[in-house]
Amino acid sequence: MESMAKENGLAASSIPAATNPMVTPLLTDQYQFTMAYAYWKAGKHQERAVFDLFFRKSPFGGEYTVFGGLEECIRFVANFRLDEEEISYLQSVMPRCEDGFFEFLRDIDCSDVEVYAIPEGSVVFPKMPLMRVEGPVAVVQLLETPFVNLVNFASLVTTNAARHRLVAGKSKTLLEFGLRRAQGPDGGMSASRYCYIGGFDATSNVAAGKLFGIPLCGTHSHAFVSSFMSPNEIINRELQSHDGSSTCQDFVNLVQTWLSKLQHAVSLPWFFGDTSQSELAAFISYALAFPHNFLALVDTYNVMRSGVPNFCAVALALNELGYKANGIRLDSGDLSYLSIESRKFFHAIEKEFCISGFGKTTIAASNDLNEETLDALNKQVGERILCRHPFIESKRAYVVPQRVEELLKCYWPGKSYEKREELPSLQEMRNHCMQQLQKMRSDHMRRLNPTPYKVSVSGKLYDFIHFLWLSEAPVGELQ
Amino acid sequence: MESMAKENGLAASSIPAATNPMVTPLLTDQYQFTMAYAYWKAGKHQERAVFDLFFRKSPFGGEYTVFGGLEECIRFVANFRLDEEEISYLQSVMPRCEDGFFEFLRDIDCSDVEVYAIPEGSVVFPKMPLMRVEGPVAVVQLLETPFVNLVNFASLVTTNAARHRLVAGKSKTLLEFGLRRAQGPDGGMSASRYCYIGGFDATSNVAAGKLFGIPLCGTHSHAFVSSFMSPNEIINRELQSHDGSSTCQDFVNLVQTWLSKLQHAVSLPWFFGDTSQSELAAFISYALAFPHNFLALVDTYNVMRSGVPNFCAVALALNELGYKANGIRLDSGDLSYLSIESRKFFHAIEKEFCISGFGKTTIAASNDLNEETLDALNKQVGERILCRHPFIESKRAYVVPQRVEELLKCYWPGKSYEKREELPSLQEMRNHCMQQLQKMRSDHMRRLNPTPYKVSVSGKLYDFIHFLWLSEAPVGELQ
Repeated sequence: MESMAKENGLAASSIPAATNPMVTPLLTDQYQFTMAYAYWKAGKHQERAVFDLFFRKSPFGGEYTVFGGLEECIRFVANFRLDEEEISYLQSVMPRCEDGFFEFLRDIDCSDVEVYAIPEGSVVFPKMPLMRVEGPVAVVQLLETPFVNLVNFASLVTTNAARHRLVAGKSKTLLEFGLRRAQGPDGGMSASRYCYIGGFDATSNVAAGKLFGIPLCGTHSHAFVSSFMSPNEIINRELQSHDGSSTCQDFVNLVQTWLSKLQHAVSLPWFFGDTSQSELAAFISYALAFPHNFLALVDTYNVMRSGVPNFCAVALALNELGYKANGIRLDSGDLSYLSIESRKFFHAIEKEFCISGFGKTTIAASNDLNEETLDALNKQVGERILCRHPFIESKRAYVVPQRVEELLKCYWPGKSYEKREELPSLQEMRNHCMQQLQKMRSDHMRRLNPTPYKVSVSGKLYDFIHFLWLSEAPVGELQ
Repeated sequence: MESMAKENGLAASSIPAATNPMVTPLLTDQYQFTMAYAYWKAGKHQERAVFDLFFRKSPFGGEYTVFGGLEECIRFVANFRLDEEEISYLQSVMPRCEDGFFEFLRDIDCSDVEVYAIPEGSVVFPKMPLMRVEGPVAVVQLLETPFVNLVNFASLVTTNAARHRLVAGKSKTLLEFGLRRAQGPDGGMSASRYCYIGGFDATSNVAAGKLFGIPLCGTHSHAFVSSFMSPNEIINRELQSHDGSSTCQDFVNLVQTWLSKLQHAVSLPWFFGDTSQSELAAFISYALAFPHNFLALVDTYNVMRSGVPNFCAVALALNELGYKANGIRLDSGDLSYLSIESRKFFHAIEKEFCISGFGKTTIAASNDLNEETLDALNKQVGERILCRHPFIESKRAYVVPQRVEELLKCYWPGKSYEKREELPSLQEMRNHCMQQLQKMRSDHMRRLNPTPYKVSVSGKLYDFIHFLWLSEAPVGELQ
């Protein structure tokens, strides 16, 4: 048994530090330290205490939450140590505290703490314990704020992503472009990571791509379009064909030829005159740089009179050289109307120039999604047990369990002999999340008036909670 | 002149890196890199470009914003360099791009970029340029996302803090306890920092206190209260008097004596029986640890029947030993009612036991504030100039300037001979912010229906903007 505990300890030491180097033992509310001192003064700092981490309400008006942030909590625990500089700072802000307390702080780590948790990416509900932290009261007190900080935002973002994935369905591609609007650098990094866990397919955030291995996506901006004046400024106009068999000497000219054909094609649903030459130059330059991945942002000037025709001219020129354009992106205006009109335009070109598949060119939109209303049924078989609402005496029900599962797994065993659960990879967490969402009854998941998911406790736990409460709360007296 | 530019350069190299180590050149949208490649392919990557950073709407339904985040942008620019690992990663995600492009990336820094900005902590308005970034187009393009990321959240939080400061007035103390609800670790760090700039007095976030020198605050939590069972478990009961002249051997007993006096004092506005012994034990322990700074959270069980009487018993015992208790904190319930009742209780004790000043014991509340409606007048004298709305042709006005100020200062001169503006300390930024807010007309600042602050441009700039727009936008044709 001794060696088993050691093995746990050894394995634990290989857990890397928290992703953000700013996550240190000082990333906590000061009162955690003043309380630790009061515990220490009272001689009860080594008493064992248990904290359950739970939440009161699911976000976005929904009835479910996807749990995120566990890995960061475990990384934090595994590397919990106050260094001398941190101790000195604490001494400077708590100058009346006795030296012995800082000796105590200097020595603490989390080897004597145990952390039990639900796997990251699980669907969870209000009042459920997500994590249980057990250890010396002064130590676990110090963990409270960082744990709440690391779990709160992570779960919020994962839940939001999962809600979008549910609405979009499995076949759609969901891309996350949130960095510029994120809550600071780490807000952006976390958002990319937890969007991926919650079911997004890729991110525009390069640092998140590198650090977490999330697929990247990205094309060009309006600024890129307006940085060009006209195709005349393009110097290198050569483009090799896709199969390498030939080289087009003047790709600019080839695009202009196609644009002219489009201007004179009477079968197209939109008539247009001169398109923006600045935009055309930008598209051509982008296609010369990325002939295999040409995706154009078409709403800088006018989607139907400039952006879409310019895109089509470049796409048709690429097609002539054996390349297939990726598609367009719409970032403003009436996205629904514009995507329908663009689709019509693509179909008309497919027909007019006999280019098979052109009608199916991708149309990407950067905007909100609406969640759809769904229904489902649920059947139950087996043996009855009494379930009680955690707080309301009269709410009771007999339930026949379909499956019995242990909620919490041990992710950090401390000195106990529990087996330490390995942290899954980001991809495994994402898969777990997708499976969890699939298992849910859809009436709990719908956007409008979702059915609350009932969290109940056993009769025994109910009695214990209420005994504890009644024995501590003072009783008033009528005057 | 040469040596002057060098001096600027030398001074610049002493600017530390961004506070969050995750702020690297890869913390950007991927399309910034694909665009950089397209610029490079088109041979225009070294062309000079100018980006203005501005925003469209002030937050919180208000008509003003406080600018935050500049220092982090300048730190980022001053240390902008892609390392080999970052280059390799970019090569792996952009495998078709030519080697020459990565050679170009390897060599870039921001020595040839200029950054002009409004000082951090300034009151700013929609459509005003907050920052102007000038340099090689491919380089400044890479700065866009990190700049927007670093400025957006910073300005949002600074503005929110400033709004609270305006409502609270100068005499109130504002404390920030947001870490646990913040958007991840950096969200918490940034929030503490920018709340301070916006006028808060202290934070509970220890890491922010250490890193930024912000004053700390903090007491104890509900968990601390419920971790005790009864005063019997307190072992070390000694407390030296404030002047060191004597030692109370049993402080627990002294508190219990005072509690008994309170229970029998008929002049008190609230009658109460047994108070919570768990809470009493927690307060005594906390007072033994912090006799100079005793502040108690009184709403764990029942504010008026337990929390306040227990606090008063401990405070009166401390008073007997020459200490002055700090006060109470309310964290739930009807804060207004409870603070009024607590105040009455304190006054009654002052009278009953002749303890001068006890009635003024601090009552701290953790909750929202309401902003008040204010009015002010503004006078104008001097010479007329024509001001135009940036976009709407018909909106014009003659204005007589009271004062003419250059909006942007040069914070990063690049190779130009501009003098580099020193970055102020956090305290200086806060002072600047407070002065800026004071200068504003209060009808722009009020919470309800604030008067929009008019941002106008000169006739010359109006003409230039509209010439540029009309020359690029395509003209439709009637069918």
